[in-house]
Amino acid sequence: MLLYGVMAMTTDVWLNETLYPDWGQRFLVTRELARVKSPFQDIVIFESSSHGRVMVLDGIIQITEGDEFVYQEMLTHVPLLAHGNAANVLIIGAGDGGVLRRVLQHREVQRAVMVEIDGEVIRLAKQFLPGIAGSAWDDKRAEVIVGDGIDYVKRAPDGAFDAIIVDSTDPIGVGEVLFTDEFYANAARILTGRGLVVNQCGVPFMQADELRETSARRAKFFPHVSAYVAAVPTYVGGFMTLGWAAKDATLTRIAADTIRARAEAAGVLGTTRYWTPEIHVGAFNLPPYIAQHLPG
Amino acid sequence: MLLYGVMAMTTDVWLNETLYPDWGQRFLVTRELARVKSPFQDIVIFESSSHGRVMVLDGIIQITEGDEFVYQEMLTHVPLLAHGNAANVLIIGAGDGGVLRRVLQHREVQRAVMVEIDGEVIRLAKQFLPGIAGSAWDDKRAEVIVGDGIDYVKRAPDGAFDAIIVDSTDPIGVGEVLFTDEFYANAARILTGRGLVVNQCGVPFMQADELRETSARRAKFFPHVSAYVAAVPTYVGGFMTLGWAAKDATLTRIAADTIRARAEAAGVLGTTRYWTPEIHVGAFNLPPYIAQHLPG
Repeated sequence: MLLYGVMAMTTDVWLNETLYPDWGQRFLVTRELARVKSPFQDIVIFESSSHGRVMVLDGIIQITEGDEFVYQEMLTHVPLLAHGNAANVLIIGAGDGGVLRRVLQHREVQRAVMVEIDGEVIRLAKQFLPGIAGSAWDDKRAEVIVGDGIDYVKRAPDGAFDAIIVDSTDPIGVGEVLFTDEFYANAARILTGRGLVVNQCGVPFMQADELRETSARRAKFFPHVSAYVAAVPTYVGGFMTLGWAAKDATLTRIAADTIRARAEAAGVLGTTRYWTPEIHVGAFNLPPYIAQHLPG
Repeated sequence: MLLYGVMAMTTDVWLNETLYPDWGQRFLVTRELARVKSPFQDIVIFESSSHGRVMVLDGIIQITEGDEFVYQEMLTHVPLLAHGNAANVLIIGAGDGGVLRRVLQHREVQRAVMVEIDGEVIRLAKQFLPGIAGSAWDDKRAEVIVGDGIDYVKRAPDGAFDAIIVDSTDPIGVGEVLFTDEFYANAARILTGRGLVVNQCGVPFMQADELRETSARRAKFFPHVSAYVAAVPTYVGGFMTLGWAAKDATLTRIAADTIRARAEAAGVLGTTRYWTPEIHVGAFNLPPYIAQHLPG
């Protein structure tokens, strides 16, 4: 795969994201830190002057030090505070540890199981992106498993978790199996009655199929399927969507004041740079160009 | 200026946006339609498979057929529906005609004056991007002036307008004078007591200075200065901000039901793909990383 384009008449090295064949973002590379071919994917970590350090999997930007807070806060705090008392949380993917750190910020969390298939992502994140997870790896409530998330949900007991957070790549490559019927059937089974699952559903302006198809799939196993939005700088193309599947219809309609009180009790209020109670509530109001892709 | 980078080992032509020195977006160019050096700026219009036709001024993406609706709807419908009865509207810039078209959607608008400094932008938009303005150019309520917006606001009578919409380039190059003390002083003078001005303030994740400095300037002449957000796909970097300066504090706090009723009366409800009454109200809830740049 051609990761580096070379600009005419300059020796600058630019990394061109290869997510779309005809449009994308590019970063001026200050220094390459790692380039590893794991059993699952090509991993590149480089330094940029615009976004700090950046991790790239199979040519697609996964995380940057500069804007990771947007995605991590919205992927974590929204489901946990909508639930209100999530003691047992399962994280699939998220090998950089950023979601784990945000989950463990919540005082009510007693156990956070993280299942990442690619041990190299964890190893390289610890070495080159230590600020993303902070001390989360050492938290006694954290259980980090290098293994297959599909397999984990198949074997987990009924009702074992209050929330499942899927921080996967797009449904191509290694992440594809995380968007199957089998995965969602098991997710529904291992969640409690108030349980919910969230997962990243791409940027609908460019990848509307992703939201449409995975929402239809979630709707087979959960009575309440929706999505909420976040404007993540390096997931370019306007709002990205985070898919929502719950057994309890009320979770998306909790008032901002209640969310604020829960965030304060959880120890999260005031620690965020993107998430607020009002943004939490407002994120479920979808623009029509996105809402049209959800099951009627 | 080097607009085109050439990828190694391919003959594809990519247009690299040059807004930032170390990060940006790129488009695969299907066909170049126009390349003109006007007295004010370099204008390029090209066809892309990803976003339809794209207009570029001095190397910076201004508008694409694919995502123009997000920016135009939010820049137009939010101030006009917050005001509730804007009969006289002044548009500065916006030579593509997209804002003019949205303004004229509102039944209560009696007169829309558009002042664009670069006649070449209007000419090329009419020729190559006819769908952006539609039939707005021929509306009897439209008065299109090729001239200097600074000069226009200097000579306009007191209280002549209910709303001013500034759709300028960033405060560099030709757009710079639209962000000065003199401009805002005159804007305040020519607005009615319920009048307000909105203008694009860039993407704070990358250009926080733009929001901070222009907000401080607006605050010298308007008692109520704020901003609201929109996730515009090709203004890459997360939320862009639209600056808000009003004489009346209540305009940002109107309930969604009232906004909906106004939109229905105006003839706008149901015509939008991004704007909704709920998104209108929620857009004033700023993430902390953006809110910190507004005057306390």
